[in-house]
Amino acid sequence: MKLYCIRHGLAQDPHPEQPDRERILTKEGYKKTRSVAQGLAALGVQVEAILTSPYLRASQTAVICHEQGLGPMPVIHEALQPGGDWQSWLTWWQAWQAQGGGAVALVGHLPDLSQWAERLLWGQVGDKLVLKKAGVMLLELPEQGNPVAQAQLLWLLPPRVLAD
Amino acid sequence: MKLYCIRHGLAQDPHPEQPDRERILTKEGYKKTRSVAQGLAALGVQVEAILTSPYLRASQTAVICHEQGLGPMPVIHEALQPGGDWQSWLTWWQAWQAQGGGAVALVGHLPDLSQWAERLLWGQVGDKLVLKKAGVMLLELPEQGNPVAQAQLLWLLPPRVLAD
Repeated sequence: MKLYCIRHGLAQDPHPEQPDRERILTKEGYKKTRSVAQGLAALGVQVEAILTSPYLRASQTAVICHEQGLGPMPVIHEALQPGGDWQSWLTWWQAWQAQGGGAVALVGHLPDLSQWAERLLWGQVGDKLVLKKAGVMLLELPEQGNPVAQAQLLWLLPPRVLAD
Repeated sequence: MKLYCIRHGLAQDPHPEQPDRERILTKEGYKKTRSVAQGLAALGVQVEAILTSPYLRASQTAVICHEQGLGPMPVIHEALQPGGDWQSWLTWWQAWQAQGGGAVALVGHLPDLSQWAERLLWGQVGDKLVLKKAGVMLLELPEQGNPVAQAQLLWLLPPRVLAD
């Protein structure tokens, strides 16, 4: 079962007056993210669910993916916020799997996305996967059973191979 | 220090009359491999050495990389043949590193390339990295010291994101 992990695009710099979760994509970040989503669409990427971090820069990225036809309207998944609860996502995944769900995209942050991918691939975290802003990973997870340490990595794409 | 790992392109089917090492790229394999090499050149990929498996399908792929301007004429490195000697390559790498060499491309086979990358990333082999024919991985290795379990993965590219 295919799992796409997409990091949010380039966002506004942090500012003491603004909560981190409200930082939005810059104009450049918006443009590049849209271009990446178009590139994914051109490769035939299609998912049945888009789960996103509640943080604005991620949910904007997820909406762009939806707008470019990659999948249905994104659903906010609290576990995808920075430092979010991996076990909670894993429980979601196993329920999704049990009900016969298909390909999924997660839109979130580093280091979480990279560390989650490592748990799925090797069962442990080593910060070995470098995912740029608006970059994309594709993992193949088993159809059944616990996916931890059972996945394979098919793609780790820097955005510039997809964007114009 | 950048290490590109490039799998040979699509080759002739095995044939009982022909030694495996003499299988060459098909016409389609040649074309797609050239297109991938052009894509890498467009991304600014440049290496100081191209090491290749002595098997024809790999050395042809390496020559295509050279022809597209990615680096100097390939050098045959016996350790890159299928089932080749990882330790021998590691010794080469450490000598290269000690003399201040820069980015390198390895052109070879599966599962070796993928397993070597895993040793550099995690220090052990799990067959977790799926590299298509004419696919490309990019690892960042430390400037000094033993690279085993010290690398990071920056790219894992299926050929279709680079080819026309």
